[in-house]
Amino acid sequence: MIYADNAATTRMSDAAVQAMLSVIQQNYGNPSSLYTLGQQAKEILEDARQAVAEVIGADPREILFTSGGSEADNQAIRSAAALGKKAGKTHIVSTAFEHHAVLHTLEKLKGEGFDITLLDVHEDGLVRPEEVRAAIRDDTCLVTVMYANNEIGTIQPIREIGEICHERGILFHTDAVQAVGHIPLNVKDDHVDLLSASAHKFHGPKGVGFLYARKGVRLTNLIEGGAQENGKRAGTENVPGIAAMAAALKESAGKIAQNTPILAERRDRLIRGLRQIPHSALNGDETQRLPGNVNFCFEGIEGESLLLLLDDKGIEASSGSACTSGSLDPSHVLLAIGRVHDVAHGSLRLSLGEDLTDADIDYIIQSVTDVVTYLRSFSPIWRDLESGKKPHIL
Amino acid sequence: MIYADNAATTRMSDAAVQAMLSVIQQNYGNPSSLYTLGQQAKEILEDARQAVAEVIGADPREILFTSGGSEADNQAIRSAAALGKKAGKTHIVSTAFEHHAVLHTLEKLKGEGFDITLLDVHEDGLVRPEEVRAAIRDDTCLVTVMYANNEIGTIQPIREIGEICHERGILFHTDAVQAVGHIPLNVKDDHVDLLSASAHKFHGPKGVGFLYARKGVRLTNLIEGGAQENGKRAGTENVPGIAAMAAALKESAGKIAQNTPILAERRDRLIRGLRQIPHSALNGDETQRLPGNVNFCFEGIEGESLLLLLDDKGIEASSGSACTSGSLDPSHVLLAIGRVHDVAHGSLRLSLGEDLTDADIDYIIQSVTDVVTYLRSFSPIWRDLESGKKPHIL
Repeated sequence: MIYADNAATTRMSDAAVQAMLSVIQQNYGNPSSLYTLGQQAKEILEDARQAVAEVIGADPREILFTSGGSEADNQAIRSAAALGKKAGKTHIVSTAFEHHAVLHTLEKLKGEGFDITLLDVHEDGLVRPEEVRAAIRDDTCLVTVMYANNEIGTIQPIREIGEICHERGILFHTDAVQAVGHIPLNVKDDHVDLLSASAHKFHGPKGVGFLYARKGVRLTNLIEGGAQENGKRAGTENVPGIAAMAAALKESAGKIAQNTPILAERRDRLIRGLRQIPHSALNGDETQRLPGNVNFCFEGIEGESLLLLLDDKGIEASSGSACTSGSLDPSHVLLAIGRVHDVAHGSLRLSLGEDLTDADIDYIIQSVTDVVTYLRSFSPIWRDLESGKKPHIL
Repeated sequence: MIYADNAATTRMSDAAVQAMLSVIQQNYGNPSSLYTLGQQAKEILEDARQAVAEVIGADPREILFTSGGSEADNQAIRSAAALGKKAGKTHIVSTAFEHHAVLHTLEKLKGEGFDITLLDVHEDGLVRPEEVRAAIRDDTCLVTVMYANNEIGTIQPIREIGEICHERGILFHTDAVQAVGHIPLNVKDDHVDLLSASAHKFHGPKGVGFLYARKGVRLTNLIEGGAQENGKRAGTENVPGIAAMAAALKESAGKIAQNTPILAERRDRLIRGLRQIPHSALNGDETQRLPGNVNFCFEGIEGESLLLLLDDKGIEASSGSACTSGSLDPSHVLLAIGRVHDVAHGSLRLSLGEDLTDADIDYIIQSVTDVVTYLRSFSPIWRDLESGKKPHIL
């Protein structure tokens, strides 16, 4: 089996599993309890906070543990919106290809009277900082732009955008779910006020994530109740999961320098190979992208069939993001970069892990080529394209 | 070490740990993914939903997985409030000794224009169904009463309250975090529309819980984003945690009949022993309580010192709930049943697990007796009480 869907979820690292098991078996106390077992759990929690903070250049007091990236996105945006509303500022700038945890929260805010500007991300899948600057108004309370896109892997000019926001005194949030543990980042250097991350994207457990909130940015609770997480997130802390997240993040972040050139080489080998397929195109900028991300469109085929046939060949990949795989609509990300509906339907995302070999990559290339050829052989759209009834787009 | 704080959190059962590990190692796919690994994860998720539903007498489609009991409480109450508001009904009935996940959510709703009636729970820690009936108004949209109190363990007349609510066509929510897996319950027989539960209270993992919502009760999202959980709770599902919760719940629920008489016998032995301490009193009704819960007040002492000295003797217990242990205020639960501040400060909760022996119980009795005597020996309040300067209350 070749697992090539690490952007959907990753296998937990041995270090993460060990950290989790150790807490489950030896430190199962409630961190709010006064006795030894509870205080040990509390210490583990705070050690994890320190470890997570260090990786992103934050202070431990700036880290809030959540149940995942979506919760962190919701809380970050809701908090900034609440602060904005209080100050009479109800305009938010974002982009058309954010994760749904961001877009749907913004839609809800629109219904509550906020004005939302969604920036174009251009054909290369990159936001232009000058367009962020132009979109900012006197009543803008928040700019939220993802660090790296979850489908096409393009890495945004976060630092430049952060600088612009801070020049204008506007809060800046980034959904960094695909970036944390994969590329180096530092919240202070990047001028980020709020950042969301998810453990299961960097070989940590599912159901755990964190929100970085710069000191001075007052958070609004999504979950009311006990005084956990400094009163900003109620509920007994998932200590084993949090310890596992910290272990996974330390390991993943520590390996970035070593893994990036290896992954990028495999990625580029895969891109070169898939480009040999006629009427195909890489989605998103070729260099400003995550080291493990490859995303292609193939004319005349349907993404779901492609995935199922690849699965038969032992290759696990996705068309869009896993979060929307049940949907029949084409990817909003591919539409945002200007792909037409037909083409967007025939997309393939391969997100590589460091375990894949050159032979695996070559096997993927051969398999995708075979499957695309096969699917085109009985595709009515492809027949129309080849007969000249419809013009080729790619 | 004698762990007597199972109401704060429990040690994960072997079955739960095994279920979790098996998923982590063999089924790490994203359940939204189309390929085999993803669909296996999806199956595990749905099997867990089926198992959880069966235990509480629900349909699997009525189970929503959350990050814990607090999130479930928040979503249940927010959902009922949203439905009420739509229908022009903004009155909610609850009780004075609910968990803070309920009380703080209600406080927030009060700030948004809702009218909240908090019922008295009387000296025995029991809500009177007829008082619920009397509190209901034409504009009542929700009654929320906890199944069993987290501090004093009193089991509420949920079925009678449920009947009253359904006669009046009003939604009924119960925070059953302390009840699920500990006492038999059935949501249909109990006329419950919304029920919250938390895995780590019944030997499952921390960071996982569920919300039962009767078919036809439309939920409001707390977390917006992907289409997981039927579009009602975004974020990649915590499959290993959910599988572990289901395993733990099946086991815990299956053992209720066998464990209850054993636990109740130990509980009653402990109550008899602690009653020998002069000027002490059991909090909450003696029989209408969870089989493992003992909660006492001791005049003239301070709960925190009691806990720390018991910890030195290897006994892990709590004063109030773990969620509020950082607070200097006396327990709102003890105040609700009429304990005065001084007395409420000197409280001790012992929540027993099935692993404790009669010898452990006797050791607890001896240790608490010794520590209370010791603490009283230099307590100025106790001196005043003994000299007749202040009257004894207990």
